[in-house]
Amino acid sequence: MTRDEARQLDAADPLAFARERFSLPDGTIYLDGNSLGALPKATPERLRDVMEAQWGHDLITSWNRHGWIDSPRQVAARLAPILGARPNELLIADSTSISLFKLLAAAVAARPGRATLLTETRNFPTDLYVAQTLADLKGVTLRTVERGELATAIDEETAAVFLTHVDYCSGERHDMGAVNAAAHAHDALVVWDLSHSAGAIELDLAGTGCDLAVGCGYKYLNGGPGAPAFLFVAEHLQDQLQTPLPGWMGHAEPFAFAGEYRPAVGISRFLTGTPSILALAALDTGIDTFAGIAMTAVEAKSASLTKLFIGEVEARCPELRLASPREPERRGSQVSFAHEHGYAVMQALIARGVIGDFRAPDLIRFGFAPLYNSHEDAWAAADALADILATRDWDQPRFHARQKVT
Amino acid sequence: MTRDEARQLDAADPLAFARERFSLPDGTIYLDGNSLGALPKATPERLRDVMEAQWGHDLITSWNRHGWIDSPRQVAARLAPILGARPNELLIADSTSISLFKLLAAAVAARPGRATLLTETRNFPTDLYVAQTLADLKGVTLRTVERGELATAIDEETAAVFLTHVDYCSGERHDMGAVNAAAHAHDALVVWDLSHSAGAIELDLAGTGCDLAVGCGYKYLNGGPGAPAFLFVAEHLQDQLQTPLPGWMGHAEPFAFAGEYRPAVGISRFLTGTPSILALAALDTGIDTFAGIAMTAVEAKSASLTKLFIGEVEARCPELRLASPREPERRGSQVSFAHEHGYAVMQALIARGVIGDFRAPDLIRFGFAPLYNSHEDAWAAADALADILATRDWDQPRFHARQKVT
Repeated sequence: MTRDEARQLDAADPLAFARERFSLPDGTIYLDGNSLGALPKATPERLRDVMEAQWGHDLITSWNRHGWIDSPRQVAARLAPILGARPNELLIADSTSISLFKLLAAAVAARPGRATLLTETRNFPTDLYVAQTLADLKGVTLRTVERGELATAIDEETAAVFLTHVDYCSGERHDMGAVNAAAHAHDALVVWDLSHSAGAIELDLAGTGCDLAVGCGYKYLNGGPGAPAFLFVAEHLQDQLQTPLPGWMGHAEPFAFAGEYRPAVGISRFLTGTPSILALAALDTGIDTFAGIAMTAVEAKSASLTKLFIGEVEARCPELRLASPREPERRGSQVSFAHEHGYAVMQALIARGVIGDFRAPDLIRFGFAPLYNSHEDAWAAADALADILATRDWDQPRFHARQKVT
Repeated sequence: MTRDEARQLDAADPLAFARERFSLPDGTIYLDGNSLGALPKATPERLRDVMEAQWGHDLITSWNRHGWIDSPRQVAARLAPILGARPNELLIADSTSISLFKLLAAAVAARPGRATLLTETRNFPTDLYVAQTLADLKGVTLRTVERGELATAIDEETAAVFLTHVDYCSGERHDMGAVNAAAHAHDALVVWDLSHSAGAIELDLAGTGCDLAVGCGYKYLNGGPGAPAFLFVAEHLQDQLQTPLPGWMGHAEPFAFAGEYRPAVGISRFLTGTPSILALAALDTGIDTFAGIAMTAVEAKSASLTKLFIGEVEARCPELRLASPREPERRGSQVSFAHEHGYAVMQALIARGVIGDFRAPDLIRFGFAPLYNSHEDAWAAADALADILATRDWDQPRFHARQKVT
């Protein structure tokens, strides 16, 4: 394929207009939106308003006047079409790790007498840490199995299965409906981590029978660095479940300051402390970048971008091994390739303005954000990669020096 | 006292210059900085820079280039002189409730075999909710006693005592050194909630032998609505304690993505997920408002403001009952008065631009922020209150209608 052919695909792209919703630096091809989404153009002005007109001018009265008190629910409700969920099933709260702790604890408590929390060995490490501590606290066992053994590992001892929907390394995607059905056949609950799915591919939490889920606000949702997480609890489960981290925001009567905790009805009970209103406003503006866009179109664009990139890289870089599923429907919106000197290869790419990231031991990882990445981005990234490998440009000491954050 | 006499006190106030560091709306007397601190003038520009020059332009590379990865420690270190702590004993993380859960769990685990978590009956409700859940999870008992019984209630069964240093209703202050000594005599740990202390009065966490503490970033620290919390762990305890909420940010090698959790050395192990960089930057700018200001001067100004306010109100409002200690050294920087129709009285004050708040059943509460409140503010608030009571201005239906947030 030529650069012109890639441009022709962009000319025919029904989502091409969405790139204008973002501030992207000139001369950079940004393929790391799966680590930190780009800045929406509207965010600085939105936050200026929250700071000056709300916090600065209306001070404490903003909790009522500007609806701050409802914002963890209202911002979340706007996520519903992106996730295929009902508006009252979502909440913005805390970090993904804290939210996962809440839902795993709630799931274990809802299945008394069951002895295991089940996941796959290669689940995201933080999710494993959180689950191990929770298992220790609740006196259950964290059982990890290989992906292929999951379906047979679910049994009557399983309180909950928890999985990351799209793997952070390979991009491999679980079949959500199949896992939910397998778990439900044994009356086990399922907790999904949607960090690498939300905003990148089409999801149908309601239609696939999801119980519980968490996910990240700062990747494809463009909520800003360290944006708060989202939390999903299916409507029929909300009033059966309890959070292990209760707080005044989740109380039935937050301003009664009652000595006894009485959880709110519905999703609000999963709130704990006071959320950052600035961070919520930034996430809300990130969610705004999806306005008027159907997730079927987002998924189609993801497939088109990643297919182009895989094709070009495989045609021109024989020393790379594809480390992601080839079929788009088995993947998230990312592509990883393995290379013995992957770290240096990625540093050489970054030096040329192509930003992806590296995951040990040998993966170079490229995230394609359907709202702002173009086919020309994918083509140019493949072109730069091919040149770096052909010229061994990566084999310079400066590309081997490790950064704190890689 | 006359308004002019109050102005003379302001003219002699060595902290008067600090008011210029804040954006305060004209015509408002803001005495609710103990609920939401005022907007520092520098915050909007600081956040614009973080959004545009850092997030927008440098994208993911900002984690290294702009030191985002170190900011939970670096912002916290700048709090050290405000709290009388060492810079490496502090961290900014999560909400106050989540931070309290972490430290209570760590304290209970550090005193195996001890059966109780001890606090006072009137501790802040959320702190009680968090402790009750934690006690249930860890199989210990939450024991609550009246304040006067605390010293004798500590015994060899006490794993930890946890208290709010300055009471949110009365403003009454615990003797930190005395409580620490009483607990340490039984080898129990103490966890302080400093939400209503930090930034308002002089603290000496190191000198009074504090073990563990948490506190709020959005009150007297001016970090913005829902700002993240701070967490203190005395240096000698850090490597003995473990968090129940581990995450990648607290791992010894965050970017190794190891399947096993291995806590970082020092305070970093108490981090969980990715923090909001926008919220951290806003809190950092809030802490900047204390630059060059000694906490002895802050405490002296607090005493001067509250003494003036109590004197004027008691002289002119005989129907009010002081619900706070009279002596400044036994109080935080707030004054509460009881009135049967306290809610309506506060609404009438707010209608005149004097903003305090109400706490059920009958308290009107006034927080004095030594950095931006003046003696004239205190005088004018007392004057408005006296007029509202003398004219029964509060006795209008519109002042009885309840808001969501009160």
